[in-house]
Amino acid sequence: MSDVAAVLSANRAFYRAFAMRDPDAMAALWAAEAPVACIHPGWDALRDRAAIIKSWRNILSNPGSPAVLCQNETAHVLGEVAYVLCHEVIEDAYLIATNFFVRERGHWKMVHHQSGPLANPPDQPEKPPQRLQ
Amino acid sequence: MSDVAAVLSANRAFYRAFAMRDPDAMAALWAAEAPVACIHPGWDALRDRAAIIKSWRNILSNPGSPAVLCQNETAHVLGEVAYVLCHEVIEDAYLIATNFFVRERGHWKMVHHQSGPLANPPDQPEKPPQRLQ
Repeated sequence: MSDVAAVLSANRAFYRAFAMRDPDAMAALWAAEAPVACIHPGWDALRDRAAIIKSWRNILSNPGSPAVLCQNETAHVLGEVAYVLCHEVIEDAYLIATNFFVRERGHWKMVHHQSGPLANPPDQPEKPPQRLQ
Repeated sequence: MSDVAAVLSANRAFYRAFAMRDPDAMAALWAAEAPVACIHPGWDALRDRAAIIKSWRNILSNPGSPAVLCQNETAHVLGEVAYVLCHEVIEDAYLIATNFFVRERGHWKMVHHQSGPLANPPDQPEKPPQRLQ
C-alpha cells in the first residue's frame, strides 16, 4: 500500500471511530510517542494525550453529539509525517479539518486534529466583500 | 539554536511578515518543495502554493485587514516536521492557529497554516504584566 493510501486509511479509521462511537478505537489511533494536539471546533488546543482521549470519550459517549461525515479528503506526505485535508459535514454545517499523522512503528498515527467552520459550503464561491455603498 | 527555538523563530517571522504587510517575506517563508496548504478563518483549504501566496498578497495589501497578534506559542518537533500552536488576537476576537513547518535545505519553512475562531477567550492570561514605571 502506498503512503497516500495508508494515510487515507488511517483517516478513515478516525471517522469510523467517530461514527461507531468507539472510544477505544479512537484512543488507539492517536500517536503514543509524538507530541499530540487536538483542536475541536471553537475549543482551545488540547496539548496532552490524556486530555485529548478524555475529550473524545466525552464526545463519543454524549448521545447528543451529532454524526460527522468526512468528504473530499486529500492526503499529502512529508516523509514520516503526513496530513489529510477534508470536509466534515455535521448536520447542516460544513467544517474544514486537517488531520496530521506520524509514522510510529510502521503505522500512521494521528498527531494533530483541527476542525473549524467554513463560511460557505464547499465548491461554492466565497462570499464577496460587502459593499458599504 | 535548538529545533524548538528555530521553529519558534520561523513562526515569529510569519507574524512579522503579517504585521509588516510584507508579501515578499510572506512568500519566502512558505515551503518551496513540500505540498503546502493554508486555511484562512472561514475559508476552504488552499492547496496550491501560488494560490496561497496570492491570497496573502491580497490580504496584506488590503488596508482593511486587521492587525494580528500572536500569543502563547508552543513548538512541537516531529523530526523534520514541526508545529506551533498559538493564539491569534484580531481586534477583540481570539483565534487558535496551528502552523506546521518542514525543514527544507536546513531552514524551517511553513507547510500548513490553519486558523479558526475560539468560542471563548483563552483561560491563561494573555498580556504580560504591564510595567507601570
